[in-house]
Amino acid sequence: MRAYDVIKLKRDGGVLSEAQIRWFMDAYTRGEVAPEQMSALAMAIFFNGLSAPELGAWTDAMLRSGVVLDLGEVPGIKVDKHSTGGVGDKISLPLAPAVAAWGVPVPMVSGRGLGHTGGTLDKLQSIPGFKVDVTVEHYRRQVHDVGCCLMGQTRELAPADKKLYALRDVTATVDCIPLIASSIMSKKMAEGIDALVLDVKFGSGAFMKERKDALVLASTMRSIGEQLGKKVTAYLTNMEEPLGYTVGNALEVVESLEVLRGGGPPDVVALTVALGAEMLWLGGKARDLAEGALRMRQVLSNGAALEKFRQITRAQHGDVRALDDPSLLPTAPHRHTLTSWADGFIGAMDAEAVGLAAMDLGAGRARAEDNVDPAVGLVLRRKVGEAVKAGDALVEIHHRDGRGLESCLARLRKALVITEVAPVRQPLLAERLGDAAPGAWASHP
Amino acid sequence: MRAYDVIKLKRDGGVLSEAQIRWFMDAYTRGEVAPEQMSALAMAIFFNGLSAPELGAWTDAMLRSGVVLDLGEVPGIKVDKHSTGGVGDKISLPLAPAVAAWGVPVPMVSGRGLGHTGGTLDKLQSIPGFKVDVTVEHYRRQVHDVGCCLMGQTRELAPADKKLYALRDVTATVDCIPLIASSIMSKKMAEGIDALVLDVKFGSGAFMKERKDALVLASTMRSIGEQLGKKVTAYLTNMEEPLGYTVGNALEVVESLEVLRGGGPPDVVALTVALGAEMLWLGGKARDLAEGALRMRQVLSNGAALEKFRQITRAQHGDVRALDDPSLLPTAPHRHTLTSWADGFIGAMDAEAVGLAAMDLGAGRARAEDNVDPAVGLVLRRKVGEAVKAGDALVEIHHRDGRGLESCLARLRKALVITEVAPVRQPLLAERLGDAAPGAWASHP
Repeated sequence: MRAYDVIKLKRDGGVLSEAQIRWFMDAYTRGEVAPEQMSALAMAIFFNGLSAPELGAWTDAMLRSGVVLDLGEVPGIKVDKHSTGGVGDKISLPLAPAVAAWGVPVPMVSGRGLGHTGGTLDKLQSIPGFKVDVTVEHYRRQVHDVGCCLMGQTRELAPADKKLYALRDVTATVDCIPLIASSIMSKKMAEGIDALVLDVKFGSGAFMKERKDALVLASTMRSIGEQLGKKVTAYLTNMEEPLGYTVGNALEVVESLEVLRGGGPPDVVALTVALGAEMLWLGGKARDLAEGALRMRQVLSNGAALEKFRQITRAQHGDVRALDDPSLLPTAPHRHTLTSWADGFIGAMDAEAVGLAAMDLGAGRARAEDNVDPAVGLVLRRKVGEAVKAGDALVEIHHRDGRGLESCLARLRKALVITEVAPVRQPLLAERLGDAAPGAWASHP
Repeated sequence: MRAYDVIKLKRDGGVLSEAQIRWFMDAYTRGEVAPEQMSALAMAIFFNGLSAPELGAWTDAMLRSGVVLDLGEVPGIKVDKHSTGGVGDKISLPLAPAVAAWGVPVPMVSGRGLGHTGGTLDKLQSIPGFKVDVTVEHYRRQVHDVGCCLMGQTRELAPADKKLYALRDVTATVDCIPLIASSIMSKKMAEGIDALVLDVKFGSGAFMKERKDALVLASTMRSIGEQLGKKVTAYLTNMEEPLGYTVGNALEVVESLEVLRGGGPPDVVALTVALGAEMLWLGGKARDLAEGALRMRQVLSNGAALEKFRQITRAQHGDVRALDDPSLLPTAPHRHTLTSWADGFIGAMDAEAVGLAAMDLGAGRARAEDNVDPAVGLVLRRKVGEAVKAGDALVEIHHRDGRGLESCLARLRKALVITEVAPVRQPLLAERLGDAAPGAWASHP
């Protein structure tokens, strides 16, 4: 087989065979197919796409480039959740333990924040001692014993994806739906899961700004799941404004703990409950989504989810005392309050700008190799639709010695729009793409 | 400037600025823009093309990546010819000296054969001692003193093109007209010429199999010439059967010398005269194409062109005695004759297959690093349209110890089609794309 012929076939609109895709990906991973050949193929895919069988084979080839975790010894249907990334998105923190509390094993490999979006690993690591770089063996044992492990991507999982992602990043082939979808799915499928719930975000703070693009991405990922024989449900959710009231790692942990104590912001709770209901249904622990939602609310309010998070934290060497005493989490030494310049309503709050404002303070990273400051961030005192008077607190800025404060303030002043009339709010959960969720367990095969 | 943004702009159908193109090409030549970035851009160009101003800037950036020869001290309008390559195409050998004999300086940088197509350098090097790798200084002086130099591409000329060509060769971006056109033109424009005649071939033995593709390539190269302020005329010529009766380096030199002595095959003479007439007109040494043709025939028959070729050969250290005594040229030790298997006419002779048959003997190279055997090759005893009887000689095969003979014969048997009725022959010169050639010198500015 010759790389040239594979590239040319895709360039000319042909369909690649499974053997061609497997050979190309393997040879690329080994360094036999050169980066310039893979980038030419990626660009040809940008223009000519990949069919469903090609996508299945492409994803499969990537996931098989490394270790595919076998969680066969863990009883139950293993279900994970993946979000395409947003601002203030701390859903995984209350979600994973709540689902695991019902006995659905949740093997979750998460990522770090980049640009204006946050990452679950950064949030977890603001808990003193919390270790995300556990071994594959530790992961397997913890999913078995505790029901959930929250770890970072290791070099062993889908190395082809890692290599390809770095290449796409410099060759303008990042924003290509088949490549995005297969990248996400290859990592998730390497975790050893049986089913997956996707939170595909759209709007200012999301990777996909347009709902229609999010829809295509969601259905592409669903189609990959189908090719690989895994159940996948996708939710399209709105990311025009940040999720919850906090943006910044330790601050988001505090807010997540509120949710795990039965409180927390309504939008974070609603999304946690909806995604969790789906996971419980896929995991065979709820007869339908309504029962799933009820059960989610139950473990969030009765302390079972928090107890599960405590077990997870302990198993990953985190200081469990910090879960009850937020003063043990990193705290920024300085605060500054941005106040309202007018009477009215919060008409809009550009999520991307808010994410970048938090990044200015050091809460996020511009490049993968940057460090984050776990303590800094933003506490929103108002969200879209809420009334405000001139002089009222809009945002509490937790900063370190003024670092990035000015630029943060400038961004926030632009991000927040104060209007005379209350805005029409968009629903958080826009659409569900999945198998029809039945009203009774019996009707589900 | 970021490579990513340039690639993305082209990918999304935008128009690159001159500054962007110049920066990208310079950075690529220096190694600052990575090969995978250039290949992604090349693939985006494959899909979205380059506008005329982009093509001009792209070509200009490539030619300025190295030395641009300044032939300002050479009086007269410097004119060169470029052919897109064919089988049996030895036109440069009689053409360049014939045009130079009229006082039009011909600075000609030629290439080597590859695949089924031959190359001028290989043919010249079958003349004992003929040196094609002369220095730029030698080249300049020889064009000044002798009126013509036939040299090989040096590393100093358009290095970006060389680097890009090697990249395109492994990334399926070779057959992309804007990239082909700019590659050819960048090398030609670096020679220090004022005007150029292009021989764009189509048909079985050509790079462009279809006339319509050859037309697009020709007009693209004309447009680049216009952008860079150089006069360019293009001829579309037929390459369904080989040019002349010989295919193979020394054999083609012998045939070229026949043309320089006023004889030679009608098709080789016709093309030499037509392209030469154009060069004389562009070079200001003929009032119109008819006068140019007359003058070409004159120097081919009166020995002036041969004398100029002698001067060139001498200046490039070639053994001039070989020009008068073909036995001093490399000769293959063995001959084999393929005879006709039927009575009839030569209905067709697949030029590509004939080229590959010669390559089987060692006359050509499969890869750029291969060596060629200057002695071996084919002498066609019949051409398309000629009558033949069973047992008549069709092709005389000059081989070395039977090397490649069997496969050569197999190819020839397929390449030659014997028909009962004489075929309708296609005209050799199909179309001229150029400024209207006036009937009188006075009307030409």
